[in-house]
Amino acid sequence: MGIITLTTDFGEKDHFVGAIKGAIYNELDDARIVDISHLVTPFNIPEAAYIIQNAYKSFPKGSIHIIGIDSELNPENKHIAVSLDDHYFICANNGIMSMICQEIVPEKIVEINIHDKIETSFPVLDVFVKVACHIARGGTLEVIGKVINTIKPIKNLVPYVNDEKNQIIGSVIYVDNYGNVVTNIKRKFFDNIQKTREYEISARNHKFKQIFKKYSDIVNFENEESKRNSDGKGLVVFNSSDYLEIAMYKSNWDNLGGASTLMGLRVMDTVTVNFT
Amino acid sequence: MGIITLTTDFGEKDHFVGAIKGAIYNELDDARIVDISHLVTPFNIPEAAYIIQNAYKSFPKGSIHIIGIDSELNPENKHIAVSLDDHYFICANNGIMSMICQEIVPEKIVEINIHDKIETSFPVLDVFVKVACHIARGGTLEVIGKVINTIKPIKNLVPYVNDEKNQIIGSVIYVDNYGNVVTNIKRKFFDNIQKTREYEISARNHKFKQIFKKYSDIVNFENEESKRNSDGKGLVVFNSSDYLEIAMYKSNWDNLGGASTLMGLRVMDTVTVNFT
Amino acid sequence: MGIITLTTDFGEKDHFVGAIKGAIYNELDDARIVDISHLVTPFNIPEAAYIIQNAYKSFPKGSIHIIGIDSELNPENKHIAVSLDDHYFICANNGIMSMICQEIVPEKIVEINIHDKIETSFPVLDVFVKVACHIARGGTLEVIGKVINTIKPIKNLVPYVNDEKNQIIGSVIYVDNYGNVVTNIKRKFFDNIQKTREYEISARNHKFKQIFKKYSDIVNFENEESKRNSDGKGLVVFNSSDYLEIAMYKSNWDNLGGASTLMGLRVMDTVTVNFT
Repeated sequence: MGIITLTTDFGEKDHFVGAIKGAIYNELDDARIVDISHLVTPFNIPEAAYIIQNAYKSFPKGSIHIIGIDSELNPENKHIAVSLDDHYFICANNGIMSMICQEIVPEKIVEINIHDKIETSFPVLDVFVKVACHIARGGTLEVIGKVINTIKPIKNLVPYVNDEKNQIIGSVIYVDNYGNVVTNIKRKFFDNIQKTREYEISARNHKFKQIFKKYSDIVNFENEESKRNSDGKGLVVFNSSDYLEIAMYKSNWDNLGGASTLMGLRVMDTVTVNFT
Repeated sequence: MGIITLTTDFGEKDHFVGAIKGAIYNELDDARIVDISHLVTPFNIPEAAYIIQNAYKSFPKGSIHIIGIDSELNPENKHIAVSLDDHYFICANNGIMSMICQEIVPEKIVEINIHDKIETSFPVLDVFVKVACHIARGGTLEVIGKVINTIKPIKNLVPYVNDEKNQIIGSVIYVDNYGNVVTNIKRKFFDNIQKTREYEISARNHKFKQIFKKYSDIVNFENEESKRNSDGKGLVVFNSSDYLEIAMYKSNWDNLGGASTLMGLRVMDTVTVNFT
Repeated sequence: MGIITLTTDFGEKDHFVGAIKGAIYNELDDARIVDISHLVTPFNIPEAAYIIQNAYKSFPKGSIHIIGIDSELNPENKHIAVSLDDHYFICANNGIMSMICQEIVPEKIVEINIHDKIETSFPVLDVFVKVACHIARGGTLEVIGKVINTIKPIKNLVPYVNDEKNQIIGSVIYVDNYGNVVTNIKRKFFDNIQKTREYEISARNHKFKQIFKKYSDIVNFENEESKRNSDGKGLVVFNSSDYLEIAMYKSNWDNLGGASTLMGLRVMDTVTVNFT
């Protein structure tokens, strides 16, 4: 039996997540349900897109991913099921899938059409769970929807490169639990423009001329511990999902604050790379 | 093997929830454990009652629901196990079950009396888990407690209706993850008083003359997107649990705030319906 | 198949926890994964040590505990696997295990050395999961590391006792979900010093001459409910993990605040016991 994952903006206090799990167990006695996140900021589609893109790859082929963000059915917000990279995704056609689809071509997209039999004000419970269980039992997408060819895009997925190809203008797309600031500049994209040139990364008035391989590369372990002074220092890495990230070594919300707070960087802010 | 669900005010940081799951697995190798919520406000019984009432129904018959709120045993706070609607509930007799029992008559209530063998300062771990595992193995309630006939009530469950039957005075019982404000006025209750009359719903200085079927019914999809201006607008719906709810379309704590913040509505505040 | 538990400072919003669970299922189809906590304050090792120490004991023998706090590999932060009390622990050698090891002697400690085959910026995903699955399949520690004899300690684990043995100077090591303040003074330690003497416990300007058996022992149930006035009163208990705790009866962040807020007690603050 496949795995069913959940990514929503339901929060963890209300009964919504529990109700969904109950409904899945009601249909599939031996379901394996995994929470990816229920703390997506309400209605924040780019945030959900980033989270699901980076989580799904670790799961076994055949996993089914329910994404419950802005999922109320209306004339401009249809429900879709997508098969891609041997995984299944069930969500509203509101842009969530465009970050993944930019990198991997979907095998099949269907617009779900089982709604004529279902009157609901809780579509994740009444529609998405039904579709997920149908797929988990080996059902095909064509039975629950009609094939479509394109999905709704979201903006600003790809950074801007100037004509001279000596500047990348990216933007902050996510701030993680440590306050580290994730940009939309991926390692491969960066490498393609950089070639072998030197570079300077700018975010507000902060400049960086080096991208570390890991966070603790900022520490000089040859110095005595008391003289290192690296805690709370800003640095740049490609994070474990291969996005350029402005981070702070051992950032800590309680004491030091993270890169986001200390450098004043928020989602949508600009991060520039100049090559020389 | 039945499902065991957990609803507590333990939070998600401390070791309490992990310890309970470990203890269940220690007794039942093939247990299926589902978190409903651990973010109930400490000692807030009405909140827990609302959450468990709306979550339990989705679970398969035979599920066992542990509710760990204000569960320290003392002369006025006994432990009970309740069978109702083919589900089992294990909790303190502190009012948590009165919201569910108001709608569905319990099949059996027992006051748990296995405490003479257990010295504990963590009753959910040492008593509730034992009772849950006993039931999961097919044990009867009579073995772990003595039958009682009534449970402790909580106040303000049902809205007030005036003698002329042209006014309902309800109150806010819950604020959800989106800041939407849930009242104690249920759809059936409302319909019974309303008959076919027009109505005006008042909460502070906000008035509503219409109850939508779903949140996005406030959007006029015939207008161009830029001219709609519906994000952040107040509206009234019956929510997916059939409670009258004052909501905000695409409410968002980060940007707009939810209905609760923007309209200044909090738990215990009055919501009035006048029929004409 | 053994249980794999997770204790991290990853938070619950990002994709990290979901990715780890996916990776475990990718290796072990029938894994049982249990979250202990993902809300450890970033890089806070004593906090993680307290949580894992009090959670692990409830789990069945043979359980495998992944602890993902400050786990980036560097010259001073090696990865270890520890077998102790018939449980397995996988973490960085940064002090996390010293609280448990102070009470129970490890059976075996190995420094993990499978890194030469793994290039990673996410060691919990790429190293700890691999080690956990190896152990879950019955593999030995020697296969994935070389035996070492000592682990890195953390400070202030044990309270100070003066030469006259009439004073214990302890400190606050944890604040729980209710705002209750946990000290490093354990029941057995206290009993050994106290013998049969009277005592006074001081924390800031608050004094206590009694340690209750449970929180509600502060309530005089012979008084009418309206005259009791015990909600929000300070008290001292040994908590369910046998640590001396300064608590507040029915503490409540929303209304009253917890002991931590109301008494101004924070982690590292001093709590003194004087015996007479």
